[in-house]
Amino acid sequence: MNGAESLINALAEHGVDACFANPGTSEMQLVAALDKQPNIRAVLCLFEGVVTGAADGYGRMADKPALNLLHLGPGFANGMANLHNAQRAGSPILNMVGDHATDHLQYDAPLTSDIKGMATPVSHSFRVSDSAAGLAQTGLDALADCLNHNGSISTFVVPADHAWTDIDEAQSELPERSQATISDTTIMEIAAQLQSASNSCLFLGGRALREEALHHAGRIAAATGCRLVTETFFARQARGVGRVATERLAYFGEAATEQLAGTDLMVLAGTKAPVSFFAYPDKPSVLAPQSATQCTLVDREGNALDALQRLADHLEAPAAPVVVAEPADYPLVDGAIDATELGKVIANRLPEHAVVCDEGATNGLGAFLLTANAPPHDWLTLTGGAIGQGLPLAIGAAIACPEQKVIALEADGSGMYTVQALWTMVRERLDVTVVLLNNRSYAILNIELSRVGVEQPGPTALSLLDLSNPDLEWTDIARGMGMQALKVETVSELDEAFTEAMEQRGPCLIEVML
Amino acid sequence: MNGAESLINALAEHGVDACFANPGTSEMQLVAALDKQPNIRAVLCLFEGVVTGAADGYGRMADKPALNLLHLGPGFANGMANLHNAQRAGSPILNMVGDHATDHLQYDAPLTSDIKGMATPVSHSFRVSDSAAGLAQTGLDALADCLNHNGSISTFVVPADHAWTDIDEAQSELPERSQATISDTTIMEIAAQLQSASNSCLFLGGRALREEALHHAGRIAAATGCRLVTETFFARQARGVGRVATERLAYFGEAATEQLAGTDLMVLAGTKAPVSFFAYPDKPSVLAPQSATQCTLVDREGNALDALQRLADHLEAPAAPVVVAEPADYPLVDGAIDATELGKVIANRLPEHAVVCDEGATNGLGAFLLTANAPPHDWLTLTGGAIGQGLPLAIGAAIACPEQKVIALEADGSGMYTVQALWTMVRERLDVTVVLLNNRSYAILNIELSRVGVEQPGPTALSLLDLSNPDLEWTDIARGMGMQALKVETVSELDEAFTEAMEQRGPCLIEVML
Repeated sequence: MNGAESLINALAEHGVDACFANPGTSEMQLVAALDKQPNIRAVLCLFEGVVTGAADGYGRMADKPALNLLHLGPGFANGMANLHNAQRAGSPILNMVGDHATDHLQYDAPLTSDIKGMATPVSHSFRVSDSAAGLAQTGLDALADCLNHNGSISTFVVPADHAWTDIDEAQSELPERSQATISDTTIMEIAAQLQSASNSCLFLGGRALREEALHHAGRIAAATGCRLVTETFFARQARGVGRVATERLAYFGEAATEQLAGTDLMVLAGTKAPVSFFAYPDKPSVLAPQSATQCTLVDREGNALDALQRLADHLEAPAAPVVVAEPADYPLVDGAIDATELGKVIANRLPEHAVVCDEGATNGLGAFLLTANAPPHDWLTLTGGAIGQGLPLAIGAAIACPEQKVIALEADGSGMYTVQALWTMVRERLDVTVVLLNNRSYAILNIELSRVGVEQPGPTALSLLDLSNPDLEWTDIARGMGMQALKVETVSELDEAFTEAMEQRGPCLIEVML
Repeated sequence: MNGAESLINALAEHGVDACFANPGTSEMQLVAALDKQPNIRAVLCLFEGVVTGAADGYGRMADKPALNLLHLGPGFANGMANLHNAQRAGSPILNMVGDHATDHLQYDAPLTSDIKGMATPVSHSFRVSDSAAGLAQTGLDALADCLNHNGSISTFVVPADHAWTDIDEAQSELPERSQATISDTTIMEIAAQLQSASNSCLFLGGRALREEALHHAGRIAAATGCRLVTETFFARQARGVGRVATERLAYFGEAATEQLAGTDLMVLAGTKAPVSFFAYPDKPSVLAPQSATQCTLVDREGNALDALQRLADHLEAPAAPVVVAEPADYPLVDGAIDATELGKVIANRLPEHAVVCDEGATNGLGAFLLTANAPPHDWLTLTGGAIGQGLPLAIGAAIACPEQKVIALEADGSGMYTVQALWTMVRERLDVTVVLLNNRSYAILNIELSRVGVEQPGPTALSLLDLSNPDLEWTDIARGMGMQALKVETVSELDEAFTEAMEQRGPCLIEVML
């Protein structure tokens, strides 16, 4: 047995069952070890941004990490933007980065780089294997790290010689993980504050948006009259018919400020206090009223379910939550497609237990709002603002939940960032429907340009926000990667195509012209 | 005037004339400032790996930096792999990274990240603007940095409020740059060593591979009988008919070791001593014989032209270099295309002063060898081993040299990394012919798998190196980005398509089935 085999076997024994990979020469022994390990599904991605985004989707849905196999510093670097998003999502992710053999590092060969320097900004923990015999334990230590804090990013480096060197049977064990419990005092104090506030808000994010935790949030609302507001860009929310209804905090600061106006108490659960996404001249960063009292019931790393349940029980809240979503069926208006009609089609046709990966940007909001009344489903958003997350996220969600339909609601500009994801969806025969929203621009930036005070942009500015000239033909791009694809230009065409996609299994792309 | 305008104007005044960009909200004032500055060509790229790779190509051909406009830490991160390559190439690159307004940073909004941490591993210098009034000077200091050392990577951060704040007319100036001169003692000592060695080798890289420097290297060879060997992955070599002929060091360590066997003196010019690209069990990292004396005439950062000319003059070398390449015309053998026939077609048809961006991997070598006898041209290689460089590099070369035909010799696996580059080629109407080598695998890794000792790979291992299932259809992908594209399967089809492409102007893609 060599180091690579001991490592891969130890990870498989402790529940790692998926590996997103783009290996190179320095990882060939790890590839060979994966080859011998039937319990890990190895998934090739044609770019590392797909690897890390897929791991994020997998982590959000499986609540355990996938293993990422990355080729030295540059391979890691290509995955960093989606690790940034994953870090904001609180996803458990295990990055295994190959490196040169230890003796070779001194020669500064072309692919030598500062992996630690690259990894640190987007990793909660970073390790380098110290020997072939210790490699499996390094891997398990890293695995334990990423299971902490509800989920975090753990990166470890495998020098090629540690992978290829033969060792005796290695002993390794998974360190225990711990999670702090919210104190009774906190529960009691917050209960008292909620009971005395006149316009309170339970601000929910992270694990507080899972079905059971939301149920208790709904009970708290029933007991205290507090509003249930979610963070704008959450990792995963359980929503739809029969689940607790929430409001989502608006994206633009001025709308969010208005939404929270009059709030006298904000109780934070699974997230931190809301701030505007960007700063603008003469606009505030903090979104809650200055006069509001803020307190944290449970932060993103804590046990939100436990905290919300105990708070509800302490409040002697009723068993049923305050407001649950009711079913709806939206009549369509045929003609050109806009965000509202798109939203109606998706809301009407969404299958039960679907997973929606929303990187729909300006045109995704209608679908989000209207699917509040669709069958129960999970909604995943772009948590860190680094575009190029949606398509990879859908890969990971589909691999974590093979029985659930995954819908990638994807904008054209964002989709191009990690367009290679389409190929992996086809290769792995994933049940993903990509709804590609083609408005031929970075539309959000046209709004932002005027918001920062640029009133009359000239041709250079406009060209930097414009995705036409040439037009992106997504059906061609998708077919080039082996994916069935269809372009729709009217609401009835969209309805027909989306309905068919929901009834079939397997990957397809619907290019929606907006 | 605001800070952004003062900055963009100062950079334009000091010769910056191209900006590769993918801006976001925090860079809108920079976009507006570019809008008002007619002397900078703003080029939108649909992914930051294209931005930085294009800047590398521009820097190699223009010997001055393009400006990169990047969106906070994640935008920078997406460009890091090609910055790694550019760093290995010694290219001058100026990264301008937008960030949140200074007051907003404290709130840790979703896109907040450790930009310094990300930038440091791939930047020679890193700066953060300290005020709106000082922004232009920060930019010029960064510009001066990247002109030093023949070319280096300089990154500076522009907080959004420094860009949007109005200022009085800013005073700024470009710091002077310096370059160390090689001492006469070094020249004399190396001359003496060359004269007494019996099997000497002038090992050339970096700026020593430009036309004039190579001319003097050829004179040195004429005077001393030394071999002229180039580094394997050079940034840019002047080659072809009438130019000094060189040997390129082999990629695989055992071949390189054999190539250098018997050498008793290695004189390094513009590069450092060769080492194997990767380490392998029981194979040496250092490629020159242990018994050989090594000495550095000029390192990568020094003035190679001056050093080689003075050495040649000191040796009283003849005016004419030892061996220059002669023209050749290779008869084609029709049928299936292989690396040799591909190389013949390219060598026969290459126009004078073409720029070849070679990321052809396993199938590019034939073209490299045979074009030694093609008309004079420049050859650019993948310097840092991080694939995804070739297509962006071609963008930058074409923008730096609009009158020269650019050929991107691109492998399928590498091409997928930054496939978005095709769109920018079309939008900017660049005179780039992409020769896409489709062998439907990471072929080099199939070789490497056996070289690290994995003799009988199973289906998982093979699937991780395989690009079929589904097949990539490059003509569809290219058309999806507006590019004219053609698939060829025989040598005569290739010859016809390549000949036509060389006779026309503008972007096109030839998918070569191998």
